[in-house]
Amino acid sequence: MSHSYQDKARALHKKYQGKIELTSPITVSSIEDLATVYSPGVAAPAQDIADHPHMVYDYTLKGRTIAVVSDGSAVLGLGNIGPEAALPVMEGKAMLFKQCAGLDAFPLCINTQDTEEIITFVKQIAPTFGGVNLEDISAPRCFEIEERLQDIGIPVFHDDQHGTAIVTLAGLINASKVVGIPLSEMNVVIQGVGAAGVAIAKLLLCHDQSFDGVCHPVKSIIMCDRQGIVHRGRTDLNSMKASLLEYTNTENKTGTLADALQGAHVFIGVSQGNTVTEDMVRSMADNPIIFAMANPTPEIAPELAHQAGAAIVSTGRSDYPNQVNNILAFPGVFKGALSAQATRITTKMKYAAAYALADLVPEPSATSILPKPLDPRVVDAVAQAVHLAA
Amino acid sequence: MSHSYQDKARALHKKYQGKIELTSPITVSSIEDLATVYSPGVAAPAQDIADHPHMVYDYTLKGRTIAVVSDGSAVLGLGNIGPEAALPVMEGKAMLFKQCAGLDAFPLCINTQDTEEIITFVKQIAPTFGGVNLEDISAPRCFEIEERLQDIGIPVFHDDQHGTAIVTLAGLINASKVVGIPLSEMNVVIQGVGAAGVAIAKLLLCHDQSFDGVCHPVKSIIMCDRQGIVHRGRTDLNSMKASLLEYTNTENKTGTLADALQGAHVFIGVSQGNTVTEDMVRSMADNPIIFAMANPTPEIAPELAHQAGAAIVSTGRSDYPNQVNNILAFPGVFKGALSAQATRITTKMKYAAAYALADLVPEPSATSILPKPLDPRVVDAVAQAVHLAA
Repeated sequence: MSHSYQDKARALHKKYQGKIELTSPITVSSIEDLATVYSPGVAAPAQDIADHPHMVYDYTLKGRTIAVVSDGSAVLGLGNIGPEAALPVMEGKAMLFKQCAGLDAFPLCINTQDTEEIITFVKQIAPTFGGVNLEDISAPRCFEIEERLQDIGIPVFHDDQHGTAIVTLAGLINASKVVGIPLSEMNVVIQGVGAAGVAIAKLLLCHDQSFDGVCHPVKSIIMCDRQGIVHRGRTDLNSMKASLLEYTNTENKTGTLADALQGAHVFIGVSQGNTVTEDMVRSMADNPIIFAMANPTPEIAPELAHQAGAAIVSTGRSDYPNQVNNILAFPGVFKGALSAQATRITTKMKYAAAYALADLVPEPSATSILPKPLDPRVVDAVAQAVHLAA
Repeated sequence: MSHSYQDKARALHKKYQGKIELTSPITVSSIEDLATVYSPGVAAPAQDIADHPHMVYDYTLKGRTIAVVSDGSAVLGLGNIGPEAALPVMEGKAMLFKQCAGLDAFPLCINTQDTEEIITFVKQIAPTFGGVNLEDISAPRCFEIEERLQDIGIPVFHDDQHGTAIVTLAGLINASKVVGIPLSEMNVVIQGVGAAGVAIAKLLLCHDQSFDGVCHPVKSIIMCDRQGIVHRGRTDLNSMKASLLEYTNTENKTGTLADALQGAHVFIGVSQGNTVTEDMVRSMADNPIIFAMANPTPEIAPELAHQAGAAIVSTGRSDYPNQVNNILAFPGVFKGALSAQATRITTKMKYAAAYALADLVPEPSATSILPKPLDPRVVDAVAQAVHLAA
């Protein structure tokens, strides 16, 4: 099936030479029209903005336009394929922004993978855009890049981190209702300490000094990487992984992923395929909840997870129930943030987005913990919640 | 009249919140569509490009998309109004690229006026675009910025320099036919040593080591700035002005603009309004040709120039004959360069564009030395000439 999508994708991309185009609602058919849209007429809005900077939102594309910025270092499951090869993905994101949220978005795939240069680049483009969606930038650079861009006056949001985290939290909220275990009693194991894993851990714990809303954190989180549990005794941790220990693995468990999973309520995989066995699932608490989101091959096949007793299985794939798809989050998050002219996307806004998503499934079941990716209610529900939280 | 354009422009910019938008020729209406345009399907064109870099031209917007880059330092007649205030101008340029040449163009108004940072920025965006139109960047920075970006693999073209130069040369070619004086006998005075003045001087003399076509240079050029004639005895010249002396003012004339104009055949003004008097025009050779292109107030009013004996007067304004408007050049230049997948826009291509423009007026007269800005033949004629010269 995946193969046929790929051939269709090749044909489609060739047919249209990409997926987005620039158009104008205005037609210039006389020299008077030209004098209105261009010189000398255009001097009036230009001078107005120079005199009253906020008028850039009235007179230009800024307030409705997102930059989708990538360095091509961590594209889909393809890895570090570079900026040109990342363009089809970023154009896809741009077209989804338009179709889902009515926002204009433009892909900027750039020719540097240097942290400082990417930060400088995003600061430089800030005057033109209402927000910046960072995309497919590899960890751990993505954390510092995003963090250091929070004060530039427009929202900067790394979708691989927070989009995934918002949808995962939404799914977990409804999974908790289905199995009858409150979030506050859940012990969670996250496998994968990249962009998504770290953001999920933070959001599930509302780990944010400045968070000023009502939070329902899970009971505990243990993070695992390829070397097993992230614990205080390890000498191979980079600074990001070390800082995770401020709020995860509070009992300082050691051992392998299998050790971590014993008695856990929730497994969240954002790592690679076929790393979880049926025995591991059997060792978990009753009615375990499995988010096996590695793409295209999940950490454990849903069929095997169910055989081993999983109550709920969620994946990143569209051909199984409970797909965690970032499209449930990013269009509404930016729509809400831009309509509120928010200057950043806070934990409170992400949290509100997750609850709004969860609320769209009034009677969740084992095969329905999340809305469908193209459910037309999603964007406005998320946007409204984000706007209110802003 | 200008006032009414400005009010119309304000209303229009507010109505549409700018002038360009992003759209897609593709509609996603099912989960299968989503899997084709986005994950997992999009992995196929992405991987193809990673394996065969040139396929970025088949699968993405790159080959048909121009970046319109400005730092907002020299916008229209408004000066250094900054990147936000420059956005309406760059959006206007982007919409004209689409309407005139069918090219997609996106405005990038950036938050730096540092030469090195602008050069780095343009290199960084090169993977995404087929060409870069630099716009409204002040002299002398614009010269170094453009020059150092000639080897990045896509055409980088500062329109304020070369767009103006191409159209001016086209007008002069036809003016020469009208007055019966060949270019090779013309003594030219250029007032204004900014972006346009320098580029006009170079193009009128085919001053380019690597030029490999047939050239018809004018006989001589004298450049003037606010201090008068640029000559070898001056101690106040910056390096750009000093380097002009390698090919202009070969007789090392000194004095004022009035001194320079005595006996000259052509005056080209790209400076400021009301700096040329009737007496100066009277002191020129018989049948003088006047390009008074300062906007909105020309160096001398066309009525006064004609009273003083000017045979031909050209301005930058649409309400007089012989308007020098960059729109005659930039859409066709980029269309031709992109269709040829040229990596830079050479003097030969600019020269070809000027002659193609001139040829569109088969019987030039004193009031018709240039095609009209919206003449539908212009873009393809220029594009074809540029493509052939590439």
